[in-house]
Amino acid sequence: MNHFIDWREHAGEAPEKFFKTTLWQGEHVMIGLNCLEPNQTQGVHAHQGADKFYFVLEGVGKFKIGDEERSETAGALIIAPAGVVHGVTNASDQRLSLLVAIAPGPK
Amino acid sequence: MNHFIDWREHAGEAPEKFFKTTLWQGEHVMIGLNCLEPNQTQGVHAHQGADKFYFVLEGVGKFKIGDEERSETAGALIIAPAGVVHGVTNASDQRLSLLVAIAPGPK
Repeated sequence: MNHFIDWREHAGEAPEKFFKTTLWQGEHVMIGLNCLEPNQTQGVHAHQGADKFYFVLEGVGKFKIGDEERSETAGALIIAPAGVVHGVTNASDQRLSLLVAIAPGPK
Repeated sequence: MNHFIDWREHAGEAPEKFFKTTLWQGEHVMIGLNCLEPNQTQGVHAHQGADKFYFVLEGVGKFKIGDEERSETAGALIIAPAGVVHGVTNASDQRLSLLVAIAPGPK
């Protein structure tokens, strides 16, 4: 198993929706990478029984968490507790890359 | 609850050991910030029943995961699966700041 991962080696683009890949999946957490090109959106949704967080790696994201909406840049941590609706849009003209963790991850 | 967190507002220094603070604690995950000044060390230890990962925010860390040892810089993700011994030393002359997630977090 590789314990040392550089997200930049895993970034990518998906023209239809947005790019997502799993960086690591353990028994208790899934760590993923999401890349949204300009105007791409992850629609609002919720995970029952799982806490999720985003960490902004590059770009600008317009996040919706419950009733709140905020634009965030690199270094921001955005929390979506279990059951709380959340989504994100890339409203900038550069790629938005997000580290994402979901605990527990999908089985 | 605050869903939007900037780790830079929570960084700090602890002269005796190293600085650690909780950024968020949910039912399924704890998200923390660790700051190690030059020569400070988090000794090797393991979490039974909990996956952990570090994400390097700034500085250079010499990480030990199981039998592996590697120096990593900003943007590196370092995985310590449940039960695997891990630790980190700041062998540089600048602060090492780490985002840390443990799933599930301590009760």
